[in-house]
Amino acid sequence: MRIAIFRKAHFNAAHRLHNPKWSDEKNAEVYGVCNNANYHGHNYDLEVKVVGEVDPETGYLMDLKILSDIIKKEVENKFDHKNLNLDVPEFKTMLTSTENFCHLIWQIMQEKLGDKYEVTIKLWETPRNYVQYPA
Amino acid sequence: MRIAIFRKAHFNAAHRLHNPKWSDEKNAEVYGVCNNANYHGHNYDLEVKVVGEVDPETGYLMDLKILSDIIKKEVENKFDHKNLNLDVPEFKTMLTSTENFCHLIWQIMQEKLGDKYEVTIKLWETPRNYVQYPA
Amino acid sequence: MRIAIFRKAHFNAAHRLHNPKWSDEKNAEVYGVCNNANYHGHNYDLEVKVVGEVDPETGYLMDLKILSDIIKKEVENKFDHKNLNLDVPEFKTMLTSTENFCHLIWQIMQEKLGDKYEVTIKLWETPRNYVQYPA
Amino acid sequence: MRIAIFRKAHFNAAHRLHNPKWSDEKNAEVYGVCNNANYHGHNYDLEVKVVGEVDPETGYLMDLKILSDIIKKEVENKFDHKNLNLDVPEFKTMLTSTENFCHLIWQIMQEKLGDKYEVTIKLWETPRNYVQYPA
Amino acid sequence: MRIAIFRKAHFNAAHRLHNPKWSDEKNAEVYGVCNNANYHGHNYDLEVKVVGEVDPETGYLMDLKILSDIIKKEVENKFDHKNLNLDVPEFKTMLTSTENFCHLIWQIMQEKLGDKYEVTIKLWETPRNYVQYPA
Amino acid sequence: MRIAIFRKAHFNAAHRLHNPKWSDEKNAEVYGVCNNANYHGHNYDLEVKVVGEVDPETGYLMDLKILSDIIKKEVENKFDHKNLNLDVPEFKTMLTSTENFCHLIWQIMQEKLGDKYEVTIKLWETPRNYVQYPA
Repeated sequence: MRIAIFRKAHFNAAHRLHNPKWSDEKNAEVYGVCNNANYHGHNYDLEVKVVGEVDPETGYLMDLKILSDIIKKEVENKFDHKNLNLDVPEFKTMLTSTENFCHLIWQIMQEKLGDKYEVTIKLWETPRNYVQYPA
Repeated sequence: MRIAIFRKAHFNAAHRLHNPKWSDEKNAEVYGVCNNANYHGHNYDLEVKVVGEVDPETGYLMDLKILSDIIKKEVENKFDHKNLNLDVPEFKTMLTSTENFCHLIWQIMQEKLGDKYEVTIKLWETPRNYVQYPA
Repeated sequence: MRIAIFRKAHFNAAHRLHNPKWSDEKNAEVYGVCNNANYHGHNYDLEVKVVGEVDPETGYLMDLKILSDIIKKEVENKFDHKNLNLDVPEFKTMLTSTENFCHLIWQIMQEKLGDKYEVTIKLWETPRNYVQYPA
Repeated sequence: MRIAIFRKAHFNAAHRLHNPKWSDEKNAEVYGVCNNANYHGHNYDLEVKVVGEVDPETGYLMDLKILSDIIKKEVENKFDHKNLNLDVPEFKTMLTSTENFCHLIWQIMQEKLGDKYEVTIKLWETPRNYVQYPA
Repeated sequence: MRIAIFRKAHFNAAHRLHNPKWSDEKNAEVYGVCNNANYHGHNYDLEVKVVGEVDPETGYLMDLKILSDIIKKEVENKFDHKNLNLDVPEFKTMLTSTENFCHLIWQIMQEKLGDKYEVTIKLWETPRNYVQYPA
Repeated sequence: MRIAIFRKAHFNAAHRLHNPKWSDEKNAEVYGVCNNANYHGHNYDLEVKVVGEVDPETGYLMDLKILSDIIKKEVENKFDHKNLNLDVPEFKTMLTSTENFCHLIWQIMQEKLGDKYEVTIKLWETPRNYVQYPA
C-alpha cells in the first residue's frame, strides 16, 4: 500500500536577498525591501511529505518520531535562529530565495531518507507566500 | 530547476445560486438556502499556484510582488465587495458555483501569466468547502 | 468555581452599509466599497463566551450541546444565508455594521441564557477584522 | 470540465497502537507512549477530495450537502467518540495507525461515491502529523 | 511595567465523562456520546497566560524557555498520551470535564510559578470548544 | 454603546537579544540562540484592540480603513523588513524583547489614536509565543 505521510516543523532565521554580481542600485530595484543591508527575518514553516510503502508489521510508512528527529537534527538545528547569508555554508554562493532554500532542504531530506522514499518539501516564508519542490 | 510558488489572497462578495431555466420550486429544491432571492455572501480565500523554472540570476521563479499585483489587479479588484450575479459580466450567463468561479479565475490568471507558467487555482467558499482547477 | 466556556460557530450573509439619511455621495465617501448597491458578503465567525459557576454534579458550567443548539436556533438560523439589510427585521432601522451586529447577537444570547450567565460575543467579519461586546 | 472539490470534517476517538503478535516489551519499544494500555486519543481532522466532471445544469461537481451528509453518515457516525480498537470492527484485525485509518476511510468513501468520482483522503492525527491516500 | 506573556502547548489524551453516583441511564442521558464506556479522546490545546512585571535587566517578564520547560514537565508529561480517568490520580474522584481539567492545570501552574505571577489557563478540547480559568 | 474592535496586521524583521552591559558569556547564557551575533528573525503578527463608543451616525467605533492605514503608516512601515537592533532608533538603548516591542507599539498607537480610545496590543513573535500590553 503506497501512501504519503506529512510532518510539519518550524524555525526562524534572518536573511537578505542580494546578488553580488549586481550593483547596489540593481539589487535595490529587483529585491526592494528584501535587499535591506541589515537583514530582515522570518518564521519559516516547513512541511515534509514522504511517499512510500506501509510496513504491515508496524502499520507505519515510517515512525514519525524518527522522521521528526531527522528534521530536527538535519534542518532545524542547521537553520534555526541563524542568519542564512552569514551562518549557512551553502548560501555563501547561492541566493537565499525561498525557491533555493526549499530545494536545499529537499536535497538534505531526500539524501537522508534514501531512494526507498520520495520526498516533497513545502516551505512557507510567510503564511501567504510559499514554495514547493518538486512542483 | 522546476518548482512551484504559491500566493494567497482574499476578497468578499455576495451571490446566489439560481438557474433561470428552472422553476423557482426546482431552484429552491436543488440549491436550498443558497438560492435565497436576496443573496448571501462569502469571504473567498484564493491560492494561486504557479509552476515554472527558477531564474538563476534572481533565485526567483517570479517576483512575488509582481504576482500579487496581478492577483490584486485582475482578481481582487474585479470581485471584491461585488455581487457576482449582478456586477460581474461573466456571470450573466454562468452559474455562480464555486466550481465555475474557480475555473474563471484560472482562465484569467493563466492567460495573464502566459504559457511559460502552469497555473493551478484553489478557491475556498468557506474554510470547510473549496475547489481546485485543474484537478 | 467561576469559569468561562467558549463555543465557536459560523454563518454567511450578504449586506451593505448605507445610511438612508445621507446622500448617495456621502454614503459612497464614508463606506467606500462596503456601500455597493448590489451588496457584498462575508463568512461571519462567532465566538460566544459564557461565564458562570460550574455545577459540581455534572462538572459542566453548561452542557455545550445545549449552548450550541441555542446558538444554532437563535443565531445561525436567523442570519445564515440571509441578506442582513433585506431579510432581518432588526436591521430595517439599524446600520449593518459589525459593531451593531455583534451587539444584536449579544442581546439575543444574553436574554436566552438569562442573568445566571454573563455573555460576551466576538464577531469576525473577516479573519483580520472583528468586534467584541461588551468591550 | 474536470475539477476537484474538497470537504473538511472532524471527529474524535481513542486508540492505542499495539501489535498482538509482539511481546509487551517490543510494543513499548516500537510504539512508545502510543502503546499506553489505557489508550490515548485525538481530534481527527479529515479532508475528502473528490475529482470529477462539473454538471453544466447545476454548476456543481456534486452537491456539497450530499457529500457532507455521506461523510457524516459513513465516517463521522462510525468513528466519532469511539474507541477505535474496541468499538470499530475493521480494527479488530488491523493496527490503528493513521496510515491504515486513512486507507479505511478512503475505501468507505470511494465505494459510496462510485467509479464516476476519484476520491483522495487526508487524515490529520494532530495538526503536525497527517496522512494522504492515494499518495 | 506590568505585561502579559502567553505560551501555547498541546498534548493528547483519552477520557470519558461518567458520574459514578448516577445510573448508567442517567450518565448516558446527561453525557451522551461523551459517556462511551470504552473512552474517546482529544488533542488538547493549552494556552498559559502569565501576568507580571518586566525585568529591566533582561527585557523579559520570564524566560519563555523556562516557562515552556515547566509546562512540559508539569503538564505535558503528566497528561500526554494518557487516559485521564485511569492514569491521572487527581481524576480518580473528579469528573474529567474540560472545566475541571482547566482548573487543575491552573492549580499546577499557579503553584509552580508562585505569587509573583498571575496565571490564566485556556484549554481547548476541540477547536470549537474551550474553557478559561479564571473567567 | 462601548465596544471593542480588533484589527490584525503583520510584518517581518531581524533582531538579536544582547545586553551591552553584560559579557558575551552572560549574554549567551541568558539569551541562548536568541543572542546569535548575526541576528535571526520573525514574522511578527500584531493585533490592535481599540475600545470606545460607537458613533450612531456611522455604526462604526472607527472606520477600519482609517485604523488599518494608521497601523500601516506608523507600525508596518517603521518595522517591516528591518533589523530592529540596527534600523530602529528606539531600540538603540532598549532590548528588543517582545515585551519591550509590544509596549513600544502600544505607545505609538495610543498616542496616535488619542485619549478617546483605549488601546491594547497583542504581538506574536511566533504562533506559540506572544505578549499583551496592557496585561
